[in-house]
Amino acid sequence: MQMPFEWRAACRRGEYSQPTVEVPRATGYAVANLVVMPRELALDFFLYAQRNPQPVPILEVTDPGDPILHTVAPGTDVRTDLPRYRVYRRGALVEEPTDIRRWWRDDLMAFILGCSCTVDVALAQRGVPIRSEDEGRGALFKTNIHTRPAGVFHGRLVVSVRPVPAEQVDLVADVTSRYPACHGAPVHIGDPGAIGIADLGRPDWGPPLRLQPGEVPVFHACGVTPQMAAIESGVDLVITHAPNHMLVTDMQAEDLMRL
Amino acid sequence: MQMPFEWRAACRRGEYSQPTVEVPRATGYAVANLVVMPRELALDFFLYAQRNPQPVPILEVTDPGDPILHTVAPGTDVRTDLPRYRVYRRGALVEEPTDIRRWWRDDLMAFILGCSCTVDVALAQRGVPIRSEDEGRGALFKTNIHTRPAGVFHGRLVVSVRPVPAEQVDLVADVTSRYPACHGAPVHIGDPGAIGIADLGRPDWGPPLRLQPGEVPVFHACGVTPQMAAIESGVDLVITHAPNHMLVTDMQAEDLMRL
Repeated sequence: MQMPFEWRAACRRGEYSQPTVEVPRATGYAVANLVVMPRELALDFFLYAQRNPQPVPILEVTDPGDPILHTVAPGTDVRTDLPRYRVYRRGALVEEPTDIRRWWRDDLMAFILGCSCTVDVALAQRGVPIRSEDEGRGALFKTNIHTRPAGVFHGRLVVSVRPVPAEQVDLVADVTSRYPACHGAPVHIGDPGAIGIADLGRPDWGPPLRLQPGEVPVFHACGVTPQMAAIESGVDLVITHAPNHMLVTDMQAEDLMRL
Repeated sequence: MQMPFEWRAACRRGEYSQPTVEVPRATGYAVANLVVMPRELALDFFLYAQRNPQPVPILEVTDPGDPILHTVAPGTDVRTDLPRYRVYRRGALVEEPTDIRRWWRDDLMAFILGCSCTVDVALAQRGVPIRSEDEGRGALFKTNIHTRPAGVFHGRLVVSVRPVPAEQVDLVADVTSRYPACHGAPVHIGDPGAIGIADLGRPDWGPPLRLQPGEVPVFHACGVTPQMAAIESGVDLVITHAPNHMLVTDMQAEDLMRL
């Protein structure tokens, strides 16, 4: 598959349910995170995003009850066109389905958020080595950094990590800072312990990561942050994409770069 | 006065009630627009902003009932610290006071939006002539361009205009595009009639403008757009800054430039 609609159509038919974390690097297209929540939470969520733009870069929001996207991937049905979802009821994970039509309600709104995997395209073009998923791409960690609260939303920042050769750290910081819609500049560079991460080999989500000699870990804010905040609000229903099973959008990665 | 807190303190004491449109160029500080609305409208307003980022660049939003800013001008009381306000009840202008404490309620939220006057600083530094208010700075026009609707919000785009020497039009487009939080790139360049403006000498708000020979009008989205959309929603209470009587923030204009 090379075109975004091919992934989405395969998801809709139930024929694709694998991670999409490597799609940007393979195709040049942007992937995006999903959080679905009841309308009653949406105002607080917008406030939370406004106060925490790095972990919560909103790309598109649907009207209550409308599962169809109009901007980042027009015609996409967010209930069927992602490879895999997580369904939380009152804060508890109850299901990890490939289709959420049976959970859909008239009061649900879908928030589409930028994803740092999208920037892999630009980094690879500049000669930065990108791990494959087997080598730890997609490892995510809870930090000890607190987000700015808003209404029912609060909690600690979740980060992704890039192992970067020391001489390329400045380059990675510069390139990623040009993608504010994909979490922007690093939130931390170096010692994982300084932000409360005990062991890169034991991520909270995704595959384990091992640093190679000469590599520095570079941490970026992650869209799992607001997902966790939504889940921990204890609201009756929150649905997210399963970690690393993002929406494949119609936007080229470079469309999300600021000029 | 040279420091932002001096303007705000003078406003609070009732000693300053004049336009602040020339403050950025005089001091280097950013000014910002204000829209206050009941919580019941706020979700739709966030959706409207997300779908219309050029006219609605949100810089800060207060919690319901809280009139104090924490980010763009910490400690500012939005009820007293702007020079002049407009109060609308069910869509009708009822008062143009210098203090809105008597209108304040526990369900009101203040939205602070970027303002294109802030970019005057960067343009003047690059040799672009900036009109004084007497010469038409602050003239605002309703266009025939429709915004993307969201909930109760819809309506036509309001624009500000810069008369620019023809040879500097590309420069102005380039510089303003680097300030997305201040309405960003031009929405139109040249013929006012093409966007439904009959006469630059008869603005909908602000002073009349006369083009000089060799000048091209350059139009930018304006924060009056969402103010009008809020007013026209017919909600019981909306309060805005009076046109050209913006909040003077603690942010330097360059703080709002993207890198």
